[in-house]
Amino acid sequence: MGFEEDLRSWSEGFWTPANTQAHADIKALDVGTTLEDRVQRLEDDLEIKAVLRRYHNTYDAHDIEGALDCFTDDAVQINGRGTFIGRDSLRASYEYLVGGQKMIMHYATGLYVTYESDDRDTALLTCRLLAYFVPWEGEPSMHGGTYVNRMKKVDGRWLIAEQRITFNFQFDITLSPRELGTDLPEPDFPLSQFDLVDPRYLYA
Amino acid sequence: MGFEEDLRSWSEGFWTPANTQAHADIKALDVGTTLEDRVQRLEDDLEIKAVLRRYHNTYDAHDIEGALDCFTDDAVQINGRGTFIGRDSLRASYEYLVGGQKMIMHYATGLYVTYESDDRDTALLTCRLLAYFVPWEGEPSMHGGTYVNRMKKVDGRWLIAEQRITFNFQFDITLSPRELGTDLPEPDFPLSQFDLVDPRYLYA
Amino acid sequence: MGFEEDLRSWSEGFWTPANTQAHADIKALDVGTTLEDRVQRLEDDLEIKAVLRRYHNTYDAHDIEGALDCFTDDAVQINGRGTFIGRDSLRASYEYLVGGQKMIMHYATGLYVTYESDDRDTALLTCRLLAYFVPWEGEPSMHGGTYVNRMKKVDGRWLIAEQRITFNFQFDITLSPRELGTDLPEPDFPLSQFDLVDPRYLYA
Repeated sequence: MGFEEDLRSWSEGFWTPANTQAHADIKALDVGTTLEDRVQRLEDDLEIKAVLRRYHNTYDAHDIEGALDCFTDDAVQINGRGTFIGRDSLRASYEYLVGGQKMIMHYATGLYVTYESDDRDTALLTCRLLAYFVPWEGEPSMHGGTYVNRMKKVDGRWLIAEQRITFNFQFDITLSPRELGTDLPEPDFPLSQFDLVDPRYLYA
Repeated sequence: MGFEEDLRSWSEGFWTPANTQAHADIKALDVGTTLEDRVQRLEDDLEIKAVLRRYHNTYDAHDIEGALDCFTDDAVQINGRGTFIGRDSLRASYEYLVGGQKMIMHYATGLYVTYESDDRDTALLTCRLLAYFVPWEGEPSMHGGTYVNRMKKVDGRWLIAEQRITFNFQFDITLSPRELGTDLPEPDFPLSQFDLVDPRYLYA
Repeated sequence: MGFEEDLRSWSEGFWTPANTQAHADIKALDVGTTLEDRVQRLEDDLEIKAVLRRYHNTYDAHDIEGALDCFTDDAVQINGRGTFIGRDSLRASYEYLVGGQKMIMHYATGLYVTYESDDRDTALLTCRLLAYFVPWEGEPSMHGGTYVNRMKKVDGRWLIAEQRITFNFQFDITLSPRELGTDLPEPDFPLSQFDLVDPRYLYA
């Protein structure tokens, strides 16, 4: 199988990966026969989803190296601009993205983990994405997309080995100020979000 | 108890099912006394939530039979148009819905599973919903709603036995194009989402 | 360490808590050595996330006492208006918030639980928030924010001991009516959401 054919084998068709996953005979939780096996599967499910949380917690913090740590060294990412392979290429891609973001906040929903084979060290994680995005110049917008993540367990850690990101829609939003009433309850201490958070992140 | 009374017993009041659930003496994780029992409960929780993922992964792919496989054969669904009972009625309802959708993408959050009784084969799953919707004619919109799912384990598989769907709000959105800068990092391979995804799903 | 210094130690910097969490050597699932230990950790993870579900299921139902039951008696909450300490202060704050809401619906995503120390009775839960909000007067809007929850296990129940809420953005939305076609499938029974849900919650 050629390189492109191999890529297409898991990434072609918008809903194909998530729909195929939903039909697999292999259950979301492919339980083993021993109790230890079953506990291991539950831990795998939790940990695989945790990788995506770490990915967004680092990405949103513009911590590029932290985000790259969620991928294998030779990870492949197909996105709206092409296919990026390996840590250095991915770094260049994230530097480009992060450079244009005054703020980004990712909302990922629908995380679903399945196992495609008897290989206990590979898994498929799909999900949907909404994001709040503020460029350095211009208006904020909401973005929508999807991920397909082919996960691999390397030296005991689950990592993203192959990833397809689709960018499906975008709409501009017009910010409005938060209106506080006149009968505000008295706080016990004055410390508020305005003392803790860089104004760059506050738009209401 | 008459049929309507029975329906109302679990479906009446917008926040009633989810709020009652939050107050139940029975914990989200109603653990048993043996380790095997506890592992079974963890697997049940994961698998019940997986049913909703399969429901959305098939529905969004317009795979109606796949979505129907998430329900019991005699499932009851109360939605904004009435009460639909059984696989054939549900099929007619989904054919109507899917027929009007150029694209739909469901974001479900707040999935919460509890057990209402000692019966280990029934459970309650509530959640909230946002959806991106594109009709064949007209503007895209975002929709918001909730689900109440009364789950039943049939022949070892968790299925939706009764479901209340509320459709609470809708707002049109105006799409804007994705703006890519001029200093794009060079991909290692040209394959991008535009080679993999039907243009019908790409709006940015 | 003074009171403010202590507050700042876990609440300062917009992405700092979630990013630090993503980097911790301690894994999301800090497994123990025995099978029972590992099952306990899985139950803790599920139950900690369930507290946030109960918080939103009660809050959205305007069940203030139910929401307060998700906190320790001496809980500290830092929000956009200051720092509130203890059940009575929190009650006053929620009465103020709830008083202005005709409807609120919280969408929480990205729930991520980690353990900061060997103390099995403390944990950190971070997440992101979107909310649909309708005031008594004026237009509906969507709100975005984040939570940092420092959780504590008290008498066998996980509760929120310290919480930072940020309110990051808000945009007004213009509601549009749901358009139903002319070829509606016939329901088996007429009961619909309009018979079950207070019109106050229906905007489409």
